[in-house]
Amino acid sequence: MRVVNVIKALNVRINRLSRGEHASVAVHLNQSTFYRHLYLTSQKDLYSCFQVCCDRDMLKIPDHQVAGHEARVGKLGPLIDDSGRFYKPLQSDKRGSEEVAFYESFSSNTEIPEHIRRFFPIFYGTKVMKASTGAEHPHIVLQDIASSRINPSVMDIKIGARTWAPESSEAYVAKCLRKDRESTSVPLGFRISGLRVYISDELGFYKPHRDAIRKAGPDDVKLLLRKFISSNPSAEMETDPDCSLASSVYGGPDGILAQLLELKAWFEDQTIYHFYACSILFMYEKGLALKGASSNAEVKLIDFAHVTEGRGVIDHNFLGGLCSLIRFLSDILKETTKFTVENGQVEPEESGLI
Amino acid sequence: MRVVNVIKALNVRINRLSRGEHASVAVHLNQSTFYRHLYLTSQKDLYSCFQVCCDRDMLKIPDHQVAGHEARVGKLGPLIDDSGRFYKPLQSDKRGSEEVAFYESFSSNTEIPEHIRRFFPIFYGTKVMKASTGAEHPHIVLQDIASSRINPSVMDIKIGARTWAPESSEAYVAKCLRKDRESTSVPLGFRISGLRVYISDELGFYKPHRDAIRKAGPDDVKLLLRKFISSNPSAEMETDPDCSLASSVYGGPDGILAQLLELKAWFEDQTIYHFYACSILFMYEKGLALKGASSNAEVKLIDFAHVTEGRGVIDHNFLGGLCSLIRFLSDILKETTKFTVENGQVEPEESGLI
Repeated sequence: MRVVNVIKALNVRINRLSRGEHASVAVHLNQSTFYRHLYLTSQKDLYSCFQVCCDRDMLKIPDHQVAGHEARVGKLGPLIDDSGRFYKPLQSDKRGSEEVAFYESFSSNTEIPEHIRRFFPIFYGTKVMKASTGAEHPHIVLQDIASSRINPSVMDIKIGARTWAPESSEAYVAKCLRKDRESTSVPLGFRISGLRVYISDELGFYKPHRDAIRKAGPDDVKLLLRKFISSNPSAEMETDPDCSLASSVYGGPDGILAQLLELKAWFEDQTIYHFYACSILFMYEKGLALKGASSNAEVKLIDFAHVTEGRGVIDHNFLGGLCSLIRFLSDILKETTKFTVENGQVEPEESGLI
Repeated sequence: MRVVNVIKALNVRINRLSRGEHASVAVHLNQSTFYRHLYLTSQKDLYSCFQVCCDRDMLKIPDHQVAGHEARVGKLGPLIDDSGRFYKPLQSDKRGSEEVAFYESFSSNTEIPEHIRRFFPIFYGTKVMKASTGAEHPHIVLQDIASSRINPSVMDIKIGARTWAPESSEAYVAKCLRKDRESTSVPLGFRISGLRVYISDELGFYKPHRDAIRKAGPDDVKLLLRKFISSNPSAEMETDPDCSLASSVYGGPDGILAQLLELKAWFEDQTIYHFYACSILFMYEKGLALKGASSNAEVKLIDFAHVTEGRGVIDHNFLGGLCSLIRFLSDILKETTKFTVENGQVEPEESGLI
């Protein structure tokens, strides 16, 4: 796309600007937002900013991100481009290099079955990217798992009662243990890290504040899992969401529960990796589901900065949390639909209602 | 049995005796040992000791116990009688009352399926018992799960990466966490608490010292699980036990693995109890197995002083550890026999060799 055309289409908004200061520019183009931060002092700088954006395949902030670091002024965060790639800045401590090491190991490991590989983002390598300040920073280049979606509803669930690996330092154990005990990780084996649920084009998304999610107890988690597949998620006082999309999102042969059961079978067997502090992402398209079309429900695993070698032992910490999550979804399905979980399969009950 | 007959059959050995001191007497009768401790100052006291033993249905120290508190001079420990009952002294802090509360709840809970109930010792209530010193102490009265066995080989495995309940005090968490990290609980999801393996009538049992078991790492655990079903367990330098009884103890439709898979299916579903610091006991009769008869392999759950309410959540901590243990046994079976584990069933491979 030529720069001149971009500028014609632009609705420019300068969020903050004072002389010589580190300022941010949000550029809205065809309903997407791309974002740069730079020393912005003149019209020439602004023009140069657009040029950089265009040269870089229109890097944007992913708006479906519900947890983790976010890009903002002076702070690195993930970016996406129009070709379906996701650029995740390498964390500067060993977490960054360990996540790269995991992706390199995983992508070349021939023992991973194809039906399991699909639960992981595709890895395209690493790339050093230049910020508008001129500073260079390495990024992991991954598949943008939401690139083909319109208004996806997303939930990020950190799996495992324990988010620290056995060989972690005392200080790190203490820090994680406190978080694990204060959240639902210890009692439930998982905790919700973030979510957003599509309501409508006009009203946008229901997205609880991070602080509210951080404080969520077992009952809140159950409620959020129900709100995620409800037509009335935003009613904060509502304690009985309708769960109207339970069968089309959680249930069925392609639903989230069926996908989790596939993962479970692999985790009962695999002893290659232990996934500490790793998240399971639920995604679906409520707009489609409300029209009676397929919800495109999908499960992905993300965040591998704390993966260790399994050394012949299964990841009992992840598996336990996964089984607990499966039980929660099964309960919702049992309460609201005619699906049952038998022998590791999600099946409609004999009534044939679904 | 009349006292006079008992005395005729006695081979009395006084372990320690000095005037007025707290002394112990071990009495061997028909290959069983019963045991009293008392102030022993005269032949009359000795006679009175036997009388007490006979009056109390021949209380004995269970010789198959491989972990936990043991009765010794001045210290309470479990006792058994000839009618197949096991008397476990109530621990004086709340652990004792909580274990009783669990047994009362479990034995009256109609939601426990019969095929699961068989994994738990039968509960006969509580009984206040008088020590030879005259002091009274309450005991839990349970089924003696080894009463019908001759020379059982026994292994006690504490299940779960975490031995503390979420609501435990800081001090208790710190104490348990240290033990869980120093042992294999954290890396493997379980730790061996004790074992004994029958060798022969002449040589008795292979029983590693508690200190050695406490220090066992992942490789030692794997080795002990192999030694447990080997004809050459006592060769301390031996790193390749023959695993000659793997298929008859771990494998087969009635073997330990099949029983663990039944338990696993229940733990994937049940949300009534969380079993912290609970042990799984493996038992079998090597004498029979070596002759080609059934090994009478059996799995039992014991030690319920830290059971809490499940409150609608599965026991992901126990389940994770159980799945890890299952994977270890499956590996041993795969290496040494033609059994495979498919769809939660232990099956001979198609070769039909077994």
